[in-house]
Amino acid sequence: MHELFLALFLIFVSARFFGELFVRFGLPAVIGELFAGIVLGPSLLNIIQPNEVLRLLAEIGILLLLFQVGLETDLKKIKDTGIKSIIVAVVGAAVPFIGGFLVSYYIFHQPVIVSLFIGGTLTATSIGITLRVFEDLGKQRTSIAQIVVGAAVIDDIIGVVLLVFINEFMIVGEVKIEDIIRVIFLIFFFLGVAPVAAYILSHFVRRLERTSHLPGFVPTIIVSLIFLFAYVSHIFGAPEILGSFAAGLAMSRRFVLPFAIAFQADERFLQKVEREMKPIIYLFTPIFFVMVGLSMNIREIHITDFELFIFALILLIIAIVGKFVGALLLRKLSLVKKAIIGVSMIPRGEVGLIFAELGKTNGVLKMTIYDALLFIIIVTTVIAPFLIKWLFKYEETLEEEKHHK
Amino acid sequence: MHELFLALFLIFVSARFFGELFVRFGLPAVIGELFAGIVLGPSLLNIIQPNEVLRLLAEIGILLLLFQVGLETDLKKIKDTGIKSIIVAVVGAAVPFIGGFLVSYYIFHQPVIVSLFIGGTLTATSIGITLRVFEDLGKQRTSIAQIVVGAAVIDDIIGVVLLVFINEFMIVGEVKIEDIIRVIFLIFFFLGVAPVAAYILSHFVRRLERTSHLPGFVPTIIVSLIFLFAYVSHIFGAPEILGSFAAGLAMSRRFVLPFAIAFQADERFLQKVEREMKPIIYLFTPIFFVMVGLSMNIREIHITDFELFIFALILLIIAIVGKFVGALLLRKLSLVKKAIIGVSMIPRGEVGLIFAELGKTNGVLKMTIYDALLFIIIVTTVIAPFLIKWLFKYEETLEEEKHHK
Repeated sequence: MHELFLALFLIFVSARFFGELFVRFGLPAVIGELFAGIVLGPSLLNIIQPNEVLRLLAEIGILLLLFQVGLETDLKKIKDTGIKSIIVAVVGAAVPFIGGFLVSYYIFHQPVIVSLFIGGTLTATSIGITLRVFEDLGKQRTSIAQIVVGAAVIDDIIGVVLLVFINEFMIVGEVKIEDIIRVIFLIFFFLGVAPVAAYILSHFVRRLERTSHLPGFVPTIIVSLIFLFAYVSHIFGAPEILGSFAAGLAMSRRFVLPFAIAFQADERFLQKVEREMKPIIYLFTPIFFVMVGLSMNIREIHITDFELFIFALILLIIAIVGKFVGALLLRKLSLVKKAIIGVSMIPRGEVGLIFAELGKTNGVLKMTIYDALLFIIIVTTVIAPFLIKWLFKYEETLEEEKHHK
Repeated sequence: MHELFLALFLIFVSARFFGELFVRFGLPAVIGELFAGIVLGPSLLNIIQPNEVLRLLAEIGILLLLFQVGLETDLKKIKDTGIKSIIVAVVGAAVPFIGGFLVSYYIFHQPVIVSLFIGGTLTATSIGITLRVFEDLGKQRTSIAQIVVGAAVIDDIIGVVLLVFINEFMIVGEVKIEDIIRVIFLIFFFLGVAPVAAYILSHFVRRLERTSHLPGFVPTIIVSLIFLFAYVSHIFGAPEILGSFAAGLAMSRRFVLPFAIAFQADERFLQKVEREMKPIIYLFTPIFFVMVGLSMNIREIHITDFELFIFALILLIIAIVGKFVGALLLRKLSLVKKAIIGVSMIPRGEVGLIFAELGKTNGVLKMTIYDALLFIIIVTTVIAPFLIKWLFKYEETLEEEKHHK
């Protein structure tokens, strides 16, 4: 037990240290937290081993982050940007998947199942990394952020469906189209019902709060709601973070207030939710990013073979370019904005790791292929925050120049 | 993973439900939370099994509660009431231990090691239950609370020393007096050094906070400090909660401000600590009390034997009366106040369970003896909050009557 306290102490302090340090050098804080994980983990010092407890705390971290993103999401704007998000997500998932599959299967002569795993790893976007960068830059309420949030949520759904599909193909050897349709139907059912259910529940919670006789109502009940929706989301076969996102959406000011003009108290309640949840969110989210860093063992990358190097490089290009295609298809947006959207979808992070790890532990992926994928995951995860930050800065200077003319 | 989210959801919601319900019937909230654990655990529904993750979260709960108690403790008052605390703790540990041992060994003819375990179980006070009741009643800053906090901390130290002593006796068959002295010395060394070290660190932390570029400094760093001190406390052989208590003490207004008149910013920092830590403390503490309830399996109590019943009853009386003796020795206190202090030391809670479980899992305690101890633990844990609440009310009416005359 006490070892865990030491581990948590090291995680918190190193995340804070490298976060603050990186920010002072103009680097994104989240890269500092990933770096803290790389330092503490098998890549460097190897003093913290990921275990069930740390994984749960990290999962709570990403659930809370998605709750916060939901809280700050404007549902009306999401409706406006919905089509754009779908284009970015679907194209950004399809191009790397198909590209990765074709290159692996036809050019590098990998078996079908291996090619599927490679395509799958290239597909998923790590929603956490991108959203955290937006939060850190204070850009989470821009229209670009809205498009990316929507796209990242849809991307996550595609990732889960793809995982079910590849997993079934791996075990059974074939895929029943009914199964895929059932999974998609359930997820979309959840996606439609969850925010409404969460809204009704949150209304009920707001009324209960006024009658509470004990302190601590808001943190315990809001966190309960998040866990409930994560659980129900999982039951529906959807990613757990979709549940906490829905819970956040239902509590968001722009979701609640138009319905509740009569209740002045609701504004006070929503402010209280934001105020009391913030310390809890800030406490848990670094654990998630440190754990992603912990899971990326740089020492495992052994790309000695020239052919493997070329293979990894081609896949990396597909992984990056594939995410831009969707953004480039959007209309009425400047090229810089399109570039920001494309770059935002690049990091593969923990979602890519889930695919690669699953392939490795099932013996489908040889170590060499795993190495190549790990290389791609680390590169995409690490470069994206830099590029996002740099592009936003570039956009600002463009705006200023326009202003001066 | 998702099962854990469901478990946490059930723990939070049932703790809140029974807490709010019990308060409305004039019962202590903490009893509601214990009851939630009894309902969810093996005693009734058996839908939640305690596991490592839940135990860690519960432990964080009690660490945070002790941090809060430290935060609200007035070190100057503790100095004034120090002797009283020592009398209450030492007498309140010695009488039940010696009484329990003698009755078990001489009257009920138990082996020495069994009698030691029985004495040990009767010794420890569950600091959490009592302090939580004080918080709920808003009495945490009274002089009685100060005496009880001090006594409970010392009692916990005695409990740990006794556990080391009994454990060594059980394994080696004899106890080296040097070992006991070493343990006591290390704990007192920690007790002396920890608050000073925590104060120096907290000063450093306050200065760092002003230069922080990232949000969430206070929750992550304060929780880190708590974990660090819990870990170091464990390394010194002291109870982990002693570490978090020391960290709280070092952050407490009355500890910091006399030294730091020059720094106006410190007042703001301490307010920030209180404001941002509250939601986190409220989130975690119910987990602890629900887990205590989960661990008390009422179904396991099978007292069929008349002799066992008499044995349990005598031990129960020793457990209760023994805690009063110390309080009765105090001077310049009304009888009601002495009674409140005595009652506050009664609950055995999770500390008693640790002794009884250790004895059971090592095969030292037969099931019948374990049953008797479990009965005592449950009765003392459940009646104390009622008695404390009732005595405070009685004291208030006495004060009013005096006022009317």
